[in-house]
Amino acid sequence: MASPQAFAVILGGGAGTRLWPSSRRARPKQLLSLGGPESLLAAAVRRARAVVGLERTLIVTAADQEAAVRADIPALPRENVIAEPVPRNTAAAVGLGAVAAARRAGRDAIIAVFPADPYIGDEATFERLVRLAVAEARETIVTIGVRPTHAETGYGYLRVGARLPRPPGGDPVHEVAGFVEKPDLPTAERYLASGEYLWNSGMFFLTAGRMLDESRRHLPGLGSLLDAAIAAPNPAAAIAAGYKDVPSISIDNGIMEKTSGLRVVPGEFGWNDVGSWAALPAVRRPDARGNVVLGGATLIDGEGSIVVAEEGAPFVGVVGVRDLVVVATRDAILVVPKDRAQDVRKVVEAAKQAGRTDLL
Amino acid sequence: MASPQAFAVILGGGAGTRLWPSSRRARPKQLLSLGGPESLLAAAVRRARAVVGLERTLIVTAADQEAAVRADIPALPRENVIAEPVPRNTAAAVGLGAVAAARRAGRDAIIAVFPADPYIGDEATFERLVRLAVAEARETIVTIGVRPTHAETGYGYLRVGARLPRPPGGDPVHEVAGFVEKPDLPTAERYLASGEYLWNSGMFFLTAGRMLDESRRHLPGLGSLLDAAIAAPNPAAAIAAGYKDVPSISIDNGIMEKTSGLRVVPGEFGWNDVGSWAALPAVRRPDARGNVVLGGATLIDGEGSIVVAEEGAPFVGVVGVRDLVVVATRDAILVVPKDRAQDVRKVVEAAKQAGRTDLL
Repeated sequence: MASPQAFAVILGGGAGTRLWPSSRRARPKQLLSLGGPESLLAAAVRRARAVVGLERTLIVTAADQEAAVRADIPALPRENVIAEPVPRNTAAAVGLGAVAAARRAGRDAIIAVFPADPYIGDEATFERLVRLAVAEARETIVTIGVRPTHAETGYGYLRVGARLPRPPGGDPVHEVAGFVEKPDLPTAERYLASGEYLWNSGMFFLTAGRMLDESRRHLPGLGSLLDAAIAAPNPAAAIAAGYKDVPSISIDNGIMEKTSGLRVVPGEFGWNDVGSWAALPAVRRPDARGNVVLGGATLIDGEGSIVVAEEGAPFVGVVGVRDLVVVATRDAILVVPKDRAQDVRKVVEAAKQAGRTDLL
Repeated sequence: MASPQAFAVILGGGAGTRLWPSSRRARPKQLLSLGGPESLLAAAVRRARAVVGLERTLIVTAADQEAAVRADIPALPRENVIAEPVPRNTAAAVGLGAVAAARRAGRDAIIAVFPADPYIGDEATFERLVRLAVAEARETIVTIGVRPTHAETGYGYLRVGARLPRPPGGDPVHEVAGFVEKPDLPTAERYLASGEYLWNSGMFFLTAGRMLDESRRHLPGLGSLLDAAIAAPNPAAAIAAGYKDVPSISIDNGIMEKTSGLRVVPGEFGWNDVGSWAALPAVRRPDARGNVVLGGATLIDGEGSIVVAEEGAPFVGVVGVRDLVVVATRDAILVVPKDRAQDVRKVVEAAKQAGRTDLL
């Protein structure tokens, strides 16, 4: 990005039991190396750095994950990791990013908000669309919407409105006709067939000033804290004092669904939110029989299966299974059919009931 | 048993990878607590003790398993654990038991040979049949045959001959018409339907003198070593010097199939050789959905599955599986469909290929 006033705000908090036992409270999904040798967070930082530079790449994370985040991205300037005093969802987290950007470069600074944890397969296309969204963000709030590849019921959608006039040869930019919550299956199928809906990626592009204005209007408790932090001699102290009282709401529900004039850049760039172990073959090339085997695990005569042995885990030997997930860490083992991968929650709940807080 | 000259010879050697990762070279199947709180070996000793007394219960084991056997049965007199200098299969192992019995109580001493590792569910019936077999063994070689419950291809069989005249009211005793090797499935089905075949349990009852005579006749290398050991001032030294040169052959193939006049006591007493993890529900009562869960493992929504977490293993969480085996130890994890439980061998082979001799 040419503009010196653009900042990336990477949202790197979150619990992430869906990839248990690899993901834990203290080691959330974005810190796992699911897509390759680097963590999902490190990949997000690398992509952001290519557009805004490392010195303007900010990470907002949870206080108890701050140390792990710093350790994962040692090259990031210390002041670019912003820890929420308490978790207060994404509206407040983006607000912290807006304060940091505005204090450094004024209210016209653009913030590019990225969730830390999606995998992105086609980074060249992604970077081109991010640059377009950042440029559009001088005028309004912009998002990047993902063209759906299947009738997913686990994501929010947005409806695409009129295409905006732009010079020929570039990627299209549309009005946003509205946000919609996670649909049921028939609705998701209708969305897919219509071609008028995109997955809500959670990426937003806007100026710091616009974020402050929208917060003041729709989430006044947050807005006044952010204003106070910008004016304060010690913004961190101002935030620490008032943050626990701000509303805990997503930026989607708290701001984006209530404001108007949004634009969307539609895109296809191998986006995957790695929402469960079943998604692993989408981000790691499976073998000829559809298996993904990581970390020195042994799979014999398997088909469509996912077998992961983390460093420090026992030797893992799996034979003759089909469409099964087996994940072993040093202290826990998960076995679940691929089509029930979301049921990992039941195991986490059982561990909790058994008093094994060390596994959460 | 009334007779003071009866000894039990429990054959407690053997590698046992079929229950890997719980069973290892250093911790063979008979040392596992598969049927309940005690090991299979401890159960065998307890059953033998009830008939012959602990002081006449002998265990023949492998040199590298001797310490583990002694630790498992601390009450057993030290001299009653006999270690083979090198593994030489069951004919030679029974020979060692015969030498010990003959030296203590003469050639008329009866030896009751029991494999250490089968599970026996109905111990009262078993004890009654053992007492009968011991009594018959004053005259010839006797075995106990197990009435087959299904067309098993993994066991040897014996064909039942004429019923021998005995006082009314007792259990029947038959001639043995012959031994047959492990059959193919159609043959096993024919055996089952005929009612004329029994599973070869590997239990034999004969005098020490008969064992020495049979060895001399059919396995002269073994016979002369046993004769020398009986005559020697230091039998252990005589055995240590010559044992490596005796033929390595089972007592079934080496002696029983070649001799004549054998008798068999047929029986049904919940016998199970626990030949793979799939046999666990036969020796541990499954829950209403056919699951066996041991050692604090967590199974949610499972059916027909076996989930074992040994002490020291990671937390094991399994959800939504059907007919699956999951076994975790401190250092290894096995996952295999129940109907492929024999394929555990492939995993053991893979561990070997990977240089993980610590897991064998």
